[in-house]
Amino acid sequence: MAKRIIIIGSGAAGMTAASSARAADKDAEISVFTCEEHISYSPCAIPFVLEGRIKDFASIIMHDPEFYRRERRIDVHTKTKVSSMDVDGKTITLADGSSLPYDSLVLATGGTVFVPPIEGAGLPGVFKVRFIQDGMDVQKALPSTRSVVVAGAGVIGLEIAVALRHAGKEVTVVEMFPQVIPRICDTDMAREVQDYCERLGIKFIMNTPLGAIKGTDKVEAVVAGKTEIPCEMVIMSTGVRANLELPNAMGLEIGPLGAVRVSPSLQPYRKGRLVKDVYLAGDLVMCQSAVAPGPTMSQLGATAVRQGRVAGLNAAGRYATFPAVLSAWVSQIGDLQIGGTGLSKGLAEYYGLKVVEGYGTGLTCARYYPGGRRLLVKLLADQETHRLLGAQIVAGSEVTGRINWLTAAILNGATAEEFVNSYENAYCPPTSMVKDAVNTAAEDLVQRL
Amino acid sequence: MAKRIIIIGSGAAGMTAASSARAADKDAEISVFTCEEHISYSPCAIPFVLEGRIKDFASIIMHDPEFYRRERRIDVHTKTKVSSMDVDGKTITLADGSSLPYDSLVLATGGTVFVPPIEGAGLPGVFKVRFIQDGMDVQKALPSTRSVVVAGAGVIGLEIAVALRHAGKEVTVVEMFPQVIPRICDTDMAREVQDYCERLGIKFIMNTPLGAIKGTDKVEAVVAGKTEIPCEMVIMSTGVRANLELPNAMGLEIGPLGAVRVSPSLQPYRKGRLVKDVYLAGDLVMCQSAVAPGPTMSQLGATAVRQGRVAGLNAAGRYATFPAVLSAWVSQIGDLQIGGTGLSKGLAEYYGLKVVEGYGTGLTCARYYPGGRRLLVKLLADQETHRLLGAQIVAGSEVTGRINWLTAAILNGATAEEFVNSYENAYCPPTSMVKDAVNTAAEDLVQRL
Repeated sequence: MAKRIIIIGSGAAGMTAASSARAADKDAEISVFTCEEHISYSPCAIPFVLEGRIKDFASIIMHDPEFYRRERRIDVHTKTKVSSMDVDGKTITLADGSSLPYDSLVLATGGTVFVPPIEGAGLPGVFKVRFIQDGMDVQKALPSTRSVVVAGAGVIGLEIAVALRHAGKEVTVVEMFPQVIPRICDTDMAREVQDYCERLGIKFIMNTPLGAIKGTDKVEAVVAGKTEIPCEMVIMSTGVRANLELPNAMGLEIGPLGAVRVSPSLQPYRKGRLVKDVYLAGDLVMCQSAVAPGPTMSQLGATAVRQGRVAGLNAAGRYATFPAVLSAWVSQIGDLQIGGTGLSKGLAEYYGLKVVEGYGTGLTCARYYPGGRRLLVKLLADQETHRLLGAQIVAGSEVTGRINWLTAAILNGATAEEFVNSYENAYCPPTSMVKDAVNTAAEDLVQRL
Repeated sequence: MAKRIIIIGSGAAGMTAASSARAADKDAEISVFTCEEHISYSPCAIPFVLEGRIKDFASIIMHDPEFYRRERRIDVHTKTKVSSMDVDGKTITLADGSSLPYDSLVLATGGTVFVPPIEGAGLPGVFKVRFIQDGMDVQKALPSTRSVVVAGAGVIGLEIAVALRHAGKEVTVVEMFPQVIPRICDTDMAREVQDYCERLGIKFIMNTPLGAIKGTDKVEAVVAGKTEIPCEMVIMSTGVRANLELPNAMGLEIGPLGAVRVSPSLQPYRKGRLVKDVYLAGDLVMCQSAVAPGPTMSQLGATAVRQGRVAGLNAAGRYATFPAVLSAWVSQIGDLQIGGTGLSKGLAEYYGLKVVEGYGTGLTCARYYPGGRRLLVKLLADQETHRLLGAQIVAGSEVTGRINWLTAAILNGATAEEFVNSYENAYCPPTSMVKDAVNTAAEDLVQRL
């Protein structure tokens, strides 16, 4: 009999799980259930639609349910809420009360934007930017908006701030930490990005949590510390929390970071034991760090895809495991790119590591070649072992490949000395300097270790 | 007493050796001897000056001897030939007969273009493109040139062919192998590049060695197989051979590839024994391959810089070693980039390995994001161990970072499965796809293994 595989959630994790299960098992009955209307779109693209770099929201939807039915024999049930699950009886129950049996289950219900419980958080004019519908709602409200407050200066918050600034709005970013891109980015590299945003005319109120949102029928102002900022729109970019409704109802173990604890096979635990035939993927999963001793979150699109693959293969009866992560990330903030991988200085010090920093500056091509963009590379190493712990890069372009390069080196436990000695860089004047800023940063690090 | 360090050769290897020696020893007397007039320029940039992408030849000269004297207390003796060396007495002799003692010596005399001994090779109108003076000579001859034959379809040959085509010349490339970029590039990837060049109007005569160059007082035509191509200029891009004049005179051991055999410290051998206080760097060095069992050549600017650093540090009394190489390379051919690392299929098979090939196609950004360029990735793995052996990428941009990323993976002995499982890619719609073409190629490889 054909295996019945049920997937809950239609984001990058869920849809990759479905496609990977199909690739591994030609005969399985594969069904996806999702509360959303649209599937297979890129939430990371929303700021760029708002900015006008991407034509419209329809462009960022890659496939519709009909595509999955026709091309991959995957049944996608949109606007269909799964209200409960029985992992002993191996069934799920839908909101309409109907019950469906499964042989294996993938839970990929993702996360939602955490909204702090402040006055006025429910007023019209307060938006999150998580789902495509959120983006559409913001776009609809933009013509009647002159001034926007973005709460949270993480990469999504900054991408949105720049997008709306480029759309001609007055933009103020309110951040409770003293720097932008807190936790994953070091203060000095974050400063580069904030300076850039300020040159675009974006205002920042740092070190200050959002106090209240004022307004009678709709948003009229935001209070941050002692400042009141008149505005017609507030965008909450205050971090993503795992959707724990179903995991909690199933009694799954939740880890210290508020996400579901899983085995390397991405199976959850219940009362200390692995739950059979259930696999998790995406933003609700607690990950293991490849450089820090503790657990970590890796709420990234690329991680969702990689986990979706493992969960889908396992659900189809193959065996795959998901490894420890460095959570390589990159963001396009206006004309500036910033990316990072591994630990930031703050996180490394939180884990008790003594961190040494190395810097390299250069260009994205040879100095004499026209069109080069400035490239600033920061590497972090552990003073004791000399191993690379993390890296951050700010540049006009070509950040992604360098972050992936450094991710490979850190993953392999390379010391700063090993990087200098053995890691080659391809060179051609239009594409690189003969000594890349990454190599220069590694040499600087060796000098300081 | 201050250490006397003498460096012979002023290319990337020699000048990096000089600067590294200075960084390691503030007091040493450091002298560089070179036959050339200009130092510290990028020979790799010559095609792009000829193409007009770089303004002039003066732009590609980074520093003059005065800079080195003033900033680094390095004496550079231009147009000064070293005629012999005595490694027992530790002296060098200049062409004028004067003799100079050294405490340590770096030999970095590079390579020269091999010109096949054919009829007419000495005619006016026959050029090499190796030194900046060669480039200037070609540029001077261009106005009176309508038709050019480029002998050799390696990356330099193709870069020059495209440059001269863009400058409005009739260009024919003659290549003795059946494909462009032979040895380091696979036939299918080479085909992409040749197709591109043909679309620009460049003609190719493949599988055919240059037979003769015809002309009375200057070049009038080239004979290749049964074809005679009328032309006013011939550019020899027929491969680089190590300059063995001084090594031979010193009795240094020459390896099977016609380059000097060295220890990991870059010291040469004489009668089976390491030569004391002599270090080599750059195009005349025989390297060890990091993936193949045999020796290899790595005549690349980036390799010269890395070897120059090791030779310079050792010459200054530090201890550094040079590791096995993958010889990561990249080339800009018109609007197309091609790069590679590790073994090509042909070379891997030459070493008796059974090769499995995997392919990935994608774009340099998310599909819906404007401005993306096509990206074609090919990965090679060993059928027995599943280890990655090599990679090649053709794309409109962003090849270099991906080649460095894959170089790191191959260097670390990653199998195709390990790459799929553990190697992360940073994702943001303007900078990458959520699953990069590199990841897609690795998944394809795993399917085929």
